[in-house]
Amino acid sequence: MENGHGDAIREEEEEWKFGPSEDLLFASRISIRGVLDQVMENIVDSRRPPVPLGHGDPSVFPCFRTASDAVDAVVSAVRSADFNCYSPNVGLLSARRAVADYLSRDLPYELTTDDVYLTNGCSQSIEHVLAVLARPGTNILLPRPGYPFYEARAAFSRLEARHFDLLPNNGWEIDLDAVEALADANTVAMVLINPGNPCGNVFRKQHLAKVAETARKLGILVIADEVYDHLAFGETPFVPMGVFGSIVPVITVGSISKRWVVPGWRLGWIVTSDPNGILKKTKIVEGIKGILNITTDPTTFTQGAVPDIIKNTKEDFFRKTIDLLRETADVELKLSLLNGIEDDVDFCCKLAREESVIILPGSAVGLKNWLRITFAVGPSSLEDGLGRLKSFCERHSKAE
Amino acid sequence: MENGHGDAIREEEEEWKFGPSEDLLFASRISIRGVLDQVMENIVDSRRPPVPLGHGDPSVFPCFRTASDAVDAVVSAVRSADFNCYSPNVGLLSARRAVADYLSRDLPYELTTDDVYLTNGCSQSIEHVLAVLARPGTNILLPRPGYPFYEARAAFSRLEARHFDLLPNNGWEIDLDAVEALADANTVAMVLINPGNPCGNVFRKQHLAKVAETARKLGILVIADEVYDHLAFGETPFVPMGVFGSIVPVITVGSISKRWVVPGWRLGWIVTSDPNGILKKTKIVEGIKGILNITTDPTTFTQGAVPDIIKNTKEDFFRKTIDLLRETADVELKLSLLNGIEDDVDFCCKLAREESVIILPGSAVGLKNWLRITFAVGPSSLEDGLGRLKSFCERHSKAE
Repeated sequence: MENGHGDAIREEEEEWKFGPSEDLLFASRISIRGVLDQVMENIVDSRRPPVPLGHGDPSVFPCFRTASDAVDAVVSAVRSADFNCYSPNVGLLSARRAVADYLSRDLPYELTTDDVYLTNGCSQSIEHVLAVLARPGTNILLPRPGYPFYEARAAFSRLEARHFDLLPNNGWEIDLDAVEALADANTVAMVLINPGNPCGNVFRKQHLAKVAETARKLGILVIADEVYDHLAFGETPFVPMGVFGSIVPVITVGSISKRWVVPGWRLGWIVTSDPNGILKKTKIVEGIKGILNITTDPTTFTQGAVPDIIKNTKEDFFRKTIDLLRETADVELKLSLLNGIEDDVDFCCKLAREESVIILPGSAVGLKNWLRITFAVGPSSLEDGLGRLKSFCERHSKAE
Repeated sequence: MENGHGDAIREEEEEWKFGPSEDLLFASRISIRGVLDQVMENIVDSRRPPVPLGHGDPSVFPCFRTASDAVDAVVSAVRSADFNCYSPNVGLLSARRAVADYLSRDLPYELTTDDVYLTNGCSQSIEHVLAVLARPGTNILLPRPGYPFYEARAAFSRLEARHFDLLPNNGWEIDLDAVEALADANTVAMVLINPGNPCGNVFRKQHLAKVAETARKLGILVIADEVYDHLAFGETPFVPMGVFGSIVPVITVGSISKRWVVPGWRLGWIVTSDPNGILKKTKIVEGIKGILNITTDPTTFTQGAVPDIIKNTKEDFFRKTIDLLRETADVELKLSLLNGIEDDVDFCCKLAREESVIILPGSAVGLKNWLRITFAVGPSSLEDGLGRLKSFCERHSKAE
């Protein structure tokens, strides 16, 4: 309005009857992309290439190049011309079968093709599952710290989000008492991210059993986000939540993005582990097919390549990736030791401005005054980034 | 309940607190896929391959094989390993620029990269635009006959759909008096599909100018669905709605699916034609970026291939496709001449059962007791399908 044309502008705005959905704008602001955009805006030094330790996307580093067998599978699917057509809403049968067999390796029973629905990446799987569950007045239980895409999609779907804590001093296990305290007659599901994002922990099998019993007791389903499946570190072996599908119905979301280091290929899945057929009886299956009826599908030729991607990729590719990857680090920020830093967001904005290093403020994932540093980058970039981080801290640390 | 375990089942169902969103189930049922599923269920004769004259997907026929230049572009993008990463929410810059240049050829001014947002196909463009506009209590004006995906997405986004007629005896032009009569203070937009789906008509430039003036007068924006762009038949030349962007803000949705005959590649766009910057002032642009922040992106390597797909595809490929393609036919059903046929849905279900031919009931696209037959199939399949259709009609026609 400073331009003196305030009235003109106001008039003009009043002429038009359309505007954006407020729910949508709110949902967008609480997404990781929204917060990182805010941090990135502080980068001023164009001579120094930014070091991205904020969002995990190792695929941009040559050392994380995907398996040549996977590339060949996509190329031959494209060349075949058999997959230029629309795909069935639920996904290509051959790809669903391949995913069912792949995931069944870690389960005490065989998944069928009917248990598998293909999506345009794990994020679309999350979009779909929350859309299906979002009846008016219902709520969902989410982990804190967690992956804010759930909060964003819950807000967008008008599904109330309630938060239970992951316990830092207890290997980031779920506070199950909190889960029971939060749940009421309108609670429909709880979300579990295993291996954990952002904490990188792996849940013990006994703990998962307790989760299943708790959900069963509350009459809610378990959404198991296992997109980091097989990228487990440390001695605790990864156990899929589907193992407990006979205790409580489990909807697992995942993709090839992380294990094959191809997040840009956009191929994910929704999988039902429900030997008792409860998801069919409660019409959740009809809901999943319904949302697939009115949303976009994953690229057909990528679906066509899935059987060969899974069959042909050698074990040593996965081993090499695991050796290069390290967990993200969640670091608590000791503000008392720093000069002129208000909080974690302020820390990250100033770090971006002064050192061109991008780190995610913990508050974006529910950990106020923590920092989330991803190590899923090339070793040299990591060294460079941590070096700049060190000098930033030294410059801002209070004199003893 | 007939199994005598009614109580047990009822008990079990009561144990669980989750169920699917009713809005979602309703939205799914009114989609074309929902209606075609209903018709397909009637196919019993497994010896006769079904002839799909219901949903246009020519890509399954060898004669509609896409341009080898387009295939090469995707293959080299995949092989480059430059596009395994996540894409920016709004799309890769190089691809946005290529689409901006491509669409500017038909406009009196140059689109910029900021006018272009890439999506996972035109259907996702529609998902996004309706989600952005869906404020509580608002309504949108849709054409009848039309493309029911709009009705499905409007229902899902709780955006009230109101229908204006396309006039069959007037070249399927828009009944603009009806548009003015339908609009009120809560009307935010009107949808125009050009070239028309399902009618295959092309709107005259003078008519589009009248549409722009009407929308301007009503203070609503125009959503121009130009996914059939450049697949125009007859003598009326195709004119993009963006030509009138200085009269009224226009959001155009489109994709490479139809012109390159690759619906399975899932690459579309949302384009703003708005020289007066009204969409920015009214925060619609912020809304579009917001929905892209919290939804899945198109495959990155397909985006990476877009510049070469557009640059390298030869004109004669497009000419060949046009020569093969024919408009869909919309045929009015004279029930008085047929025995034992209740309506268009009944006609299509019995045709599927007796002849394994799939035709879309007109009521699915807003034309009760019409039939929609797509000609976008191989010539031999078309001949076969029409032959079976003929014998079906002869068998069911009333004796003179």
